[in-house]
Amino acid sequence: MDDSTLSLVLFSGTDDKLNAASVLTAGAAAMGRKVNIFLQYWALDAFRSDTIHKDHGVAPEAGTEGAEAYQRHGGQHWSEIFRQAKDIGEVSIHACSLSMEMFGLTVEDLDPIVDGQEGVASFFMDVDGPVTFI
Amino acid sequence: MDDSTLSLVLFSGTDDKLNAASVLTAGAAAMGRKVNIFLQYWALDAFRSDTIHKDHGVAPEAGTEGAEAYQRHGGQHWSEIFRQAKDIGEVSIHACSLSMEMFGLTVEDLDPIVDGQEGVASFFMDVDGPVTFI
Amino acid sequence: MDDSTLSLVLFSGTDDKLNAASVLTAGAAAMGRKVNIFLQYWALDAFRSDTIHKDHGVAPEAGTEGAEAYQRHGGQHWSEIFRQAKDIGEVSIHACSLSMEMFGLTVEDLDPIVDGQEGVASFFMDVDGPVTFI
Repeated sequence: MDDSTLSLVLFSGTDDKLNAASVLTAGAAAMGRKVNIFLQYWALDAFRSDTIHKDHGVAPEAGTEGAEAYQRHGGQHWSEIFRQAKDIGEVSIHACSLSMEMFGLTVEDLDPIVDGQEGVASFFMDVDGPVTFI
Repeated sequence: MDDSTLSLVLFSGTDDKLNAASVLTAGAAAMGRKVNIFLQYWALDAFRSDTIHKDHGVAPEAGTEGAEAYQRHGGQHWSEIFRQAKDIGEVSIHACSLSMEMFGLTVEDLDPIVDGQEGVASFFMDVDGPVTFI
Repeated sequence: MDDSTLSLVLFSGTDDKLNAASVLTAGAAAMGRKVNIFLQYWALDAFRSDTIHKDHGVAPEAGTEGAEAYQRHGGQHWSEIFRQAKDIGEVSIHACSLSMEMFGLTVEDLDPIVDGQEGVASFFMDVDGPVTFI
């Protein structure tokens, strides 16, 4: 057990990976760890407020059977789990400036659980040790 | 060089990623590091005892040529490399309770190299620093 | 902020992930952190000198729209960003011996930004804490 910050770089935007990321975030926050999240590429695109609840698919390897198991299982949406993690602990979510530019997005286009945008050097200023890439 | 625990969250269930994960686990164990593995989603599904040796495919990006290079290369199955890592070092493998529920699995359905199941908060109690997500 | 070594295992060989990895490497190097990179599988294959600048595709989840946004954005090639990161900081890039063997490659087949090859145990001798898997 440890109290260092958990630094997550979210790259993938499929619902299964974002769900896994949200569960890890909630678990870490529940154990009293600060969580520092940086959104890049397809993960950033998934946090657009107009499409955050649409179906973002699952990893191709899931296959039909896996995708059905995922849908059937239900449970809370990953955005809701991130929201709860922010309520119970110290969780910050920032969009990568370079990815924002690539998609032509502004902070107003993103769901309010995103705290703002920053560059990668700024992200690394808060990194305590290594980063987890999802 | 370092003696902290290596905490791995395995998410992907393709043979190439599981092979990479098993090689990293064996390498870390050989260097005297404790390895703490948590199985989620498609990685968990790949550890079912009835299908662990079946073909789980490779990442789509491998293409036909890459997939053939992977098959041709042969070498030990990743489950065997995990087994050996457990023999040479302190390696624990736990299934994520939420994913178990999603697939309707019990511990008896899994290969005996899996030590049991636990929730994400329980996994984080043993985490020493960050986690590696594969 | 932290001055421990960032240890990256690059597994994926698509241009979007390699671009993300190169940006994180440059960010970490700019903040004065040592970066220790280990190339496996499809990432290793992407560093072949004869094909490093060819199109390695993007993650399947990108879809047509995402792939177009990626292409349109332009920006520097990831190999150039890695090269600059090596200029500004202490960044080493080694190929995994097992993956070299799988693809039948020698160090001469790789782009000169790759410093050499090593086994996984040797990689872990330089690992300071956890590893980031991309």
